[in-house]
Formats: sequence, C-alpha cells, structure tokens
Amino acid sequence: MIRFTNDYSEGAHPRILEALARTNLEGNYGYSCDEHSDRARALIREAIGRPDADVHILVGGTQTNTTALCAFLRPHEAVIAAESGHVCVHETGAIEATGHKCIAMPAVEGRLTPEAVRAAVAAHPDEHMVKPRLVYISNTTEVGTVYTTAQLRELRAVCDELGLLLYLDGARMASALATGCTTLPETAALVDAFYIGGTKNGAMFGEALCILNPALKPDFRYILKQRGGMLAKGWLLGLQFEVLMQDGLYEQLGRHANEMAMRLKQGIAELGYGFGADSPSNQQFPIFPDAVIDRLKGDFHWETMGKLPGGRTHIRLVTSWATQPEAVEAFLAALAACTGG
Amino acid sequence: MIRFTNDYSEGAHPRILEALARTNLEGNYGYSCDEHSDRARALIREAIGRPDADVHILVGGTQTNTTALCAFLRPHEAVIAAESGHVCVHETGAIEATGHKCIAMPAVEGRLTPEAVRAAVAAHPDEHMVKPRLVYISNTTEVGTVYTTAQLRELRAVCDELGLLLYLDGARMASALATGCTTLPETAALVDAFYIGGTKNGAMFGEALCILNPALKPDFRYILKQRGGMLAKGWLLGLQFEVLMQDGLYEQLGRHANEMAMRLKQGIAELGYGFGADSPSNQQFPIFPDAVIDRLKGDFHWETMGKLPGGRTHIRLVTSWATQPEAVEAFLAALAACTGG
Amino acid sequence: MIRFTNDYSEGAHPRILEALARTNLEGNYGYSCDEHSDRARALIREAIGRPDADVHILVGGTQTNTTALCAFLRPHEAVIAAESGHVCVHETGAIEATGHKCIAMPAVEGRLTPEAVRAAVAAHPDEHMVKPRLVYISNTTEVGTVYTTAQLRELRAVCDELGLLLYLDGARMASALATGCTTLPETAALVDAFYIGGTKNGAMFGEALCILNPALKPDFRYILKQRGGMLAKGWLLGLQFEVLMQDGLYEQLGRHANEMAMRLKQGIAELGYGFGADSPSNQQFPIFPDAVIDRLKGDFHWETMGKLPGGRTHIRLVTSWATQPEAVEAFLAALAACTGG
Amino acid sequence: MIRFTNDYSEGAHPRILEALARTNLEGNYGYSCDEHSDRARALIREAIGRPDADVHILVGGTQTNTTALCAFLRPHEAVIAAESGHVCVHETGAIEATGHKCIAMPAVEGRLTPEAVRAAVAAHPDEHMVKPRLVYISNTTEVGTVYTTAQLRELRAVCDELGLLLYLDGARMASALATGCTTLPETAALVDAFYIGGTKNGAMFGEALCILNPALKPDFRYILKQRGGMLAKGWLLGLQFEVLMQDGLYEQLGRHANEMAMRLKQGIAELGYGFGADSPSNQQFPIFPDAVIDRLKGDFHWETMGKLPGGRTHIRLVTSWATQPEAVEAFLAALAACTGG
Repeated sequence: MIRFTNDYSEGAHPRILEALARTNLEGNYGYSCDEHSDRARALIREAIGRPDADVHILVGGTQTNTTALCAFLRPHEAVIAAESGHVCVHETGAIEATGHKCIAMPAVEGRLTPEAVRAAVAAHPDEHMVKPRLVYISNTTEVGTVYTTAQLRELRAVCDELGLLLYLDGARMASALATGCTTLPETAALVDAFYIGGTKNGAMFGEALCILNPALKPDFRYILKQRGGMLAKGWLLGLQFEVLMQDGLYEQLGRHANEMAMRLKQGIAELGYGFGADSPSNQQFPIFPDAVIDRLKGDFHWETMGKLPGGRTHIRLVTSWATQPEAVEAFLAALAACTGG
Repeated sequence: MIRFTNDYSEGAHPRILEALARTNLEGNYGYSCDEHSDRARALIREAIGRPDADVHILVGGTQTNTTALCAFLRPHEAVIAAESGHVCVHETGAIEATGHKCIAMPAVEGRLTPEAVRAAVAAHPDEHMVKPRLVYISNTTEVGTVYTTAQLRELRAVCDELGLLLYLDGARMASALATGCTTLPETAALVDAFYIGGTKNGAMFGEALCILNPALKPDFRYILKQRGGMLAKGWLLGLQFEVLMQDGLYEQLGRHANEMAMRLKQGIAELGYGFGADSPSNQQFPIFPDAVIDRLKGDFHWETMGKLPGGRTHIRLVTSWATQPEAVEAFLAALAACTGG
Repeated sequence: MIRFTNDYSEGAHPRILEALARTNLEGNYGYSCDEHSDRARALIREAIGRPDADVHILVGGTQTNTTALCAFLRPHEAVIAAESGHVCVHETGAIEATGHKCIAMPAVEGRLTPEAVRAAVAAHPDEHMVKPRLVYISNTTEVGTVYTTAQLRELRAVCDELGLLLYLDGARMASALATGCTTLPETAALVDAFYIGGTKNGAMFGEALCILNPALKPDFRYILKQRGGMLAKGWLLGLQFEVLMQDGLYEQLGRHANEMAMRLKQGIAELGYGFGADSPSNQQFPIFPDAVIDRLKGDFHWETMGKLPGGRTHIRLVTSWATQPEAVEAFLAALAACTGG
Repeated sequence: MIRFTNDYSEGAHPRILEALARTNLEGNYGYSCDEHSDRARALIREAIGRPDADVHILVGGTQTNTTALCAFLRPHEAVIAAESGHVCVHETGAIEATGHKCIAMPAVEGRLTPEAVRAAVAAHPDEHMVKPRLVYISNTTEVGTVYTTAQLRELRAVCDELGLLLYLDGARMASALATGCTTLPETAALVDAFYIGGTKNGAMFGEALCILNPALKPDFRYILKQRGGMLAKGWLLGLQFEVLMQDGLYEQLGRHANEMAMRLKQGIAELGYGFGADSPSNQQFPIFPDAVIDRLKGDFHWETMGKLPGGRTHIRLVTSWATQPEAVEAFLAALAACTGG
C-alpha cells in the first residue's frame, strides 16, 4: 500500500530522530525552560526576522489554534474564517468550546477575501450580536491554494481598518513557502500571530506559535498550561525545531513535498484528468472516473472528498517530506494503465 | 410617537399589575418554591396536556434558551438552527459561550426544514466535527411565519430518526397559537422542551420552560441557579403565569395582537404595497418607498430590516396585546395620505 | 406566620409599584436604551460621586456577579474571596462555570483581610497555578458584619500593591450604609466596580452595577447580552432605580431595616441569648435552645444556620424595608414567653 | 549536575527509542486508528483485566485529567479532591476552565479519606451549591504516599453510597505498583476511570486513559479532538505503550525508580535526617539544614518545597527509570561529607 493519505503518516526526519537519540539522557529542565528550547526560539526569531517575537512550541495544530484564540479573545469576540477553514469544520467545535463563535464566510479558492471580512463585520453591527475580532486564515489553505504576500497585505489593511487581529494557521507553512508565495519574514510582518507547522514537515510533532503583537503576549504560558498544552518534556519540542531551523532543513523538506506534488499534478494532467482546485502545493485534488478509482484503490490510499455527478470521484492526494519519487512514479504508471489507450 | 417597534415596549396587562399590587406584601418563599409558582406550574401542565412536564419560569428569552441548551447538551454536541434563528444571530453568541456550535442552515420562509436537518447531520459524520444533537426552532419564526402541527410532526420524525432533540422557542407562542397553526398540547406532544413566552404577551416579564423529555429533567435547577437565572423573588414569575393561564387570558392577548397585525397587513396591501414575507402573525414586514418612509417616521416608530434596490426600505411592524386599534388606523391613514392619488 | 426568612419575601416599595402602574403603557425603547434608565444612571452617578461611572442595571445578584467577573477576567485569572463569600458557596459554581477559580480564604468575622489577600497571592507564584486577579468582598458580609471605609482603604492598598482588582457585592449595600460604616462615594472611590442592591431594599428586582475602572468598561453590554442579563424591558430596571435614588428613599429603607434588626438584637440580648456574630446590620444570628426553637417555629419563619452542641440551634433572622415593628414586637414577646421566669 | 529534579528530565527508554526508529517510515493511519494503537489498547486491557475497557492514549497528564473530567461531568457537577491534589493546585485552574468547581478537602498524608468525601457531600446539600459528582485521587499521591487496594475499596464504597464517580490519576502509577500497594486489575476493578502514566515511566510521552464505567464511554473521541488532545500521529502513542506493556517493562521501570528512591531514603535516614512525609515511592521529601543545602546545590538539582523554621529546608528528590545508582551514591556521599563528624 502506497500512501498519499496525508502528510502525517510517518514519524520524523532522520536528523530529528538522531537528535532525539543523542540527547535522550542528557537531562533537561521541564516545561520548555531548557537550552534546546531557548535555541529553537532564537532560531525561529531569526528566521522570521522578528527578535521581539514570543515563541511557544506546542504539540499539535488544533491545540495551537484553540489555545491561541482562547488567549487572544474576550468572551464576546468572534473569529472570522473561510467556511472551509479548519477551525470552522474539522476541530470538533474547539473554538466554540472556548466560548467563541466562528463566523464562516464564503471562500474564493479556499481563501478568505478582504470583501468577505468586510461583509462579516458589516453583518455584526451591535451588542445583540457577537463582535468580530480575529481573522483566521491558513497558508496553505485547506484546498491547497496559497496566500501571496500581496494578499496577506490586503488582509492586514482591512484588519487594521476594522480593528481586527490577523492569525495565520501555518500547519502547511513549509509547503506554502516552497511555492514562493511568501516568506517567513513577510508573513511575520503582516500577522498578529501565526504558527510554523512541524508535524507535517519533518518533526515527529510540534507547532511553533509566534506572537508578534505585544498586546497578545502577556500570560500566554498560563493559558498554555491551563489548556493542557504545556508539555512536561518541553525540550523535545525545542530540540526538534532546533534541528528543523538549522541549515535550511525546514524549507528543504517543504520543497521536496511540493516537487513530489508537482510531478503528480503534471502527470495526472497529462493523462487528461482534471482537478477540483488548482493547487500549487503538497495537496492535490484530482477527479477520476469511478472505474479508475476502483482499480487504483487496492495499491494506493488517499482521502475521498466526495462523489461527483457522472460517475466520478473527487479525491485528495498528499505528499510530504517522506514521499518517495518511486511512489509518485508508481501512482502515475498505475493511472496510465487505467487510462488505457 | 406611535410605536410598532416591538412587542415589549409596554409593562404588563392590567390584571397582572393588579395581582402584583394585591400580593405585594403577602410574603412568599424564595426561588420559585412558593404557592403562586406551584399553581402556575399546575395550570401550565394542564394547558399543555402534560401532567408529567417539569416547568421552570425564567425572566427572559435569551436566558431561557441558553440555560436550557447548556443543560441539555454535552460539550461536543451542537445545535442545528435556521440561519435566521435567534440563537444563531441575536444572542451575542450565547450558545457558543456555553461551548456549543450553532450549525446555521438555510431556512424556507424562516422555517427549518427536515431536509435541512438531514443535511446538517450528513455534513457532520465523525468525531473531527461537532455532533449535531438539538434542533432549535422558533414559533412564530423570526420572520413572522409559523410551524403547523403537521410541520412539527415532520421535524419530530426526522429528529427521532437521527437521534436529535427538538427544542422550540416560544417567545411569540401566543401569536402562533392565534393563527391556529398548532395548539399547546400538540406542540408539547412533539418537542422535547419548549417555552411559553410571557414577556411579549402580557407579562411584565417571564418565560415558562416546559421540559417534556424525562432525560432532560434532572438537576435543571442547579444549572438555572448557576447561570444566574433563578430569581430570588420567583413568586413574581409564578404569579404572572397564574394570571395569564387563567380564563384564557394568554390566548386572548395573542388573538388581539394578531388582529391588529391583520388589519395592518390588509390595509397596507390594499394600498398596493408588498411584503418581505407573508406573515400570519404579529410581525409584519412591509416594503415602502423611501419617500413614504421619510413622511411616516416622524409619527411612527419601527425597526428597519434593510435598504432595498430601487429606493425602497424593508421594515418590521410589530403589534402586541397593548396595541390600540386607533394606532393601527392612524398608521393606515398616514400611509394612505403618503400614497396619494 | 411572621417571616424573618430573608429580605426578599415581599414585592416592592409602594412608590415603585405606583411608578410601574403609572408608566405601564407609556411605551419605551428596549434594552435599557430608554429615558428612565438614562435618569436612573444619572442619579446613581450623582449618588456615588462619579460622573464617569458606567452603570448597568441587572435583574439579580448572582447574575450581576457572574456577568461582571466574566467580563473582567482573562481565562487564567482567579477570584480571591472569603470562604464564606457568596461566590464561593451559594452561586452553584457560577464563577467556575465561566472558567475562573475562586480561591477561598479564611475570613475574620466574615471579612476578607489584607493578610488573606497577600497569602492568596503568595501561594500562586507562577504559571502552573491560576493567577489571582480580583478580590471579591460583600458589604454587608454574608454574616452581617460590615467593611468600614478604612478597611476598604486597606484592601485597596493591597490590591494596588499586588495588581489586583477590587469588586464589591452590594446586595445589602443599603444596610451597610445605614450602619454608617461607609458611604456610596467613599466606596466608589475605592473599588474597581461594585453593585448597589435593589432586590433586597425596596425594588421589585434590580442591581445597579457601577464600573469605575475605565479598563473594565469596554463592551460590557455585549457580555451582558451574551449571558442573558440584558432585559428586553430594561426600562423596568431604570424606573425602579429612578424611584429609589430620589428623595433619599434607598437610604431610608436601609435605615428602617437596620432599626428593626437592632430592636431584635437588643431584645434578644436582654433576654439573655447570645449570637453567632456581632452584626450591626439587617441580618442577626442568634443562638437559642432547641426547646425555644420548637415553641417559636409555629408562628415565625427563619433559616437555620446549624445545630450546636448542648441542644442549641443557630438561626438567622433577617429584617427588611418591609418588616413591621409589630412583627419584631411579636417575636420578642413570644421569645420572652418561652424564656420563662 | 546530577538531577533529582523530577521524573521527566530524560527522553525515553532505549526500547522505545528503538521502536520509534524502526517504525519511523512504515506509514500508519492517523488519529490512533492504527495497528500499534490497536495492539497497545489490547495489551492494556489485558494488563488491567478488563476486556471491556475503553482505552485512549493522550500526550500529557493535565490534558488527560481535564479532558476526562470535562467529558464525564455536567455543568453543575463538581470534583472532590485533596487540597494537595494536582487538579486543585498545579493545573492552572484547568478543571475550572471547563466550568467545574474543585472542592478542596483536607488530606491525610496526601490521601483523600472517605470521611473527607462524606464531609464534602454533606456541605453541598442543594441547588444553591455545586453538586459533588467525581472524586479525584492520585496514586502515588502528590507527596509520594500511596493508596492501598483496601483504601481504594473504602473510597469506592463511599462513592457508591453517595452516587459519586471515582477517578484515579496514575501519573506515577508505576511507582505505586512497585510499592505493592495495589495492582492494575485491582485498581481497574474499583474506579470508574484512571490513567496509566507513561511520561514519567519510560515513555517519551503518553498517558493511557482507561474508562471502565460504560456510562462514561460514549463520544469520548469527540471531546478528545475538541480539546486538542487527539494526536495526528496517534500511532506514536500506541507504539510506546505497545513496548511498555510487553515483557513487564512498565512494572520493571517502576521498580527501578523505587529502588533508587529507597536507597536515597535509607541513606539519608542513616545520616540522621528527617522527612516531611514517609514516602514508599519515587518521590522523597527530606529536610536538611540550610548549610547542607548550600553545599549540595552546586552539584545536584532538586525542587524546594519550602523553608522551615530553624534554618532548615524541605526539598523533593525524585528518582525515575533513568536514575543511575551512581547518582544516588554520589548524593549520599556528598551528604555524608556535609554531615561531617
């Protein structure tokens, strides 16, 4: 079985495994108050060009989103997100569980637009409704598209105009960076907070939350602890980002994932199939006839997005730092065989 | 200034004022453990044909909805409501503030349909998403339309099939009853819980929550107290429903409100104006040219729903137990004068 | 049955009943955006000597405490209160239900001391524990004792030193004022927020929350609405405080309650009985032999605090604006008869 | 620097590191729906003698406690715990953040007694107070003492009598087991839910929550996801418990930790020093003169519990699966040198 199921099917990049083994018995202070975490935070601050950033490394993405938004918002304040946004759909109401409404807005190719932000604010004019306060976006988006720096700048402008915070979920930041759409410093200059995803890009686990807006920094560690997100062995998180942020490893792994995806995309297109979205990143959403699906599914694994009219199925293929070129070739060969001719 | 602003601009029906004055110094036990509350609960159980109902009388509608739903749901369970539903829009995220997502579904003339309920459940198939658990409807709806007993029966059927609770917000139950669409016993037989609104139908304040489903009854008073909804002088609530539920006063006041609304509706239609919704109840949503609006607004007050293309405005006119026929005649006369000819 | 059960057994002072009847049909804007509420807020600001205060009138005490504290605190911040404090014990965990720990500290005669505040802060030094942020006190306290202005000043000093907010629950503020221990302006000058209780002093219902600290003011109405505390017919609340705050009625009713309590206290002491606390206010806590209790309980009603060794019972007798001198005389006569000799 | 700081200063037992490396690229389904997790759950069910148990493996202890209690309790229900209980003190109000009061009761040598449970329930008789519903205990306790099976049986009896759930925090279960005070099957037979701690006993991270009471099982994975506790790479958790639960490794590591602690305890006692608690487990709480402390602290690290009268300091020394006998000998030698004579 060859997996294009997701980008979290494997453990960690060998350099990280090696670092974990090497430091296993060295003894470290707990709760991220250790030297590996210090170095990781320093490397991240350098990489994003913000020596003033507060950096906290958490275990997972839903945990990071819900802890951050819970810390940043007062009880009546709401989140604006694309209706396809991870916080709106796939976190089992985690944001609502901390008391905050998610205002789901129509997306354009998975992206929240300045117009949608404006519309959300206009629809909530007074205290009989929630107060929109934070704009949530993901880069890459949930459908594999990206925000360019120019698009982030437009969102920043509308947030400034309307008194909103801008938060970016970077679970797949490495893949976004590899498309060239933006850079870490450009992103860090435009958002109030964002996280650099490790789980899907070489780390065993770990997401580095960067808080740029000084008003959002106080007492974050209290809320991190309260919500169960403060890892006792916090140096495990620090160590992993220490490795990822050195020698360009983080960016390199993202480029690999995207290269594998581009080969898939090109090969599928050349065989005449279409896509549900035009994704430049490590998630591809091809559409195949059901007969093709049936022949491929014994050897390959993926997630199904939905059944389409005309006996077709919309699927998601995901590549990662761990995807082997041979896996891509095998898929394309099998697809070619199905496609006949 | 003649007000069609809402149905809570006046105090209380004279019989209620008189009862409050008569009993003012009699001395009663607190927290709804008094004889007036006992009698009110008995009268309500009789009126709804459910001697087994648990009845709790609260001060206001948002408070009733949020306390009930908070008591009925586990943390991951969500509410399905029409996108125009009061809990989705006009309660400042009160449901989310207790941790529960409101799944907003498209409405048909303000009504949630069985198909929409089915679609909401189908869209939430597993533990990565919230679990739909309670269907929230309002009768009358937020746009003045009603659910018939037959429509409630269809919703009950889909709820039974899908394992959902059915909750009905009866802030304007009196107006719904006066349309003949349903009766209190028919409603009580079909929902898991609902409330009979007093604030908008003759009471100074008060909403009588009726819990029919035995599984939802335990410990409700704890949650009532915890959420600040247990009135120290609870007999004030009991006394008011004691009056409303005797001699048919509750229904009589609802009929009056609807009669006033029907006169408005007919008069407006006869003058050639249209409506945003075809409402049989005490809320009417006419559409007037802006020039008409400008001439009426010095003498009458209402809420504006929105500006429409072509220089027209969509407004809401509300009648109540306290609306005088003279007020209706004055409005229609003024409108006729504007309409000219 | 003569009741010394509590100070919320009766309806409202006749002047309030009269005002409710007089204004019943005048028509008012909803949600406290009416002229009565404007005047009430102005009168309150004048009475407390703080033209800058934000004043919000809510229906009940638990609702006021929980809404205010929920609005004032971030998720990790905790409340410090006397272990006998209402929020610690008798609000069914309302504060915890909004996510905040109540740190219960030993009290001295029902009062929280500066030393206890210091100890609470010292015991919570870092982010593995909650962060104490708000000191909750009640005046009068739950055992009938009072804070003097000097004692409030000491608490203010320790709060300033430790970065804490000071919040005062004035459910029985009128009785406190009548003891001469403090004044409204002195209290308002020393706390960040407090409420002036109406329910227990002549109003049918209503508590006037005064927010003095500018940092606590923004968006309070959102949270008021979200928690179900924004009364649709808000002018009912405004009207009642408009009456109470004119011609010294509020203070006059408090003095009456205390006079009745002092007669009880003196009469009970003269008959040789002791008290659980030395209260100068409208709650008295005498201790009687069980035989006396048995003879009195057919004609009088009260709350029992607990059984004591030696066949004695500790009870609470409460007087109010509505207590008749004849009731006090009857109690003392009956007690004298039991006491024999 | 030799560390007796805690039992989470090192990474993972070599067998776990080896398993992580061996399986790194094998590819697994996400969210604990993989074969390693299946096997781990089966091994745990076998070890606790409960084939019916629901087993969920989470990352950390605070996360496990708060997710479980949040899932098990209705909004008005409260936790009873020893005042030294981890949930009462060191989780930054995590339980309160999910809305539930922790009722802190005096402990006897760190243990909650049946009498304390009874007293907590007696103090909360009605709906004006929270409803005690769940008893939280830790084995070993926060001061290193243990509950025997007989003591657990007594707590179970009082819980059954009073309608309470019994929950056991097994962060240091391995050390408890190694004392012989109880066994996994005996514990599993007496509690409604408990967790087997991995983080402090050989795992890199991981706590295995076992739900025994069928009423507590439904939909747990929803709440796990909602609270950010569902690890994308859940097989990492399964794999670790697969290793720990084979060949007696879990128990063996606990025995090692306790042996190291017993050597420390005996050596310290032989040198004439006392202890703050008589602990049979891997946490020891000796008391040393400040002069001794000053001489040791350059070479050894520990946590300070507090300063005592007479120039003495109360410290905590913790051993673990990773503690080397040489470290213990070095400490005792240094202590002997300080002790002089």
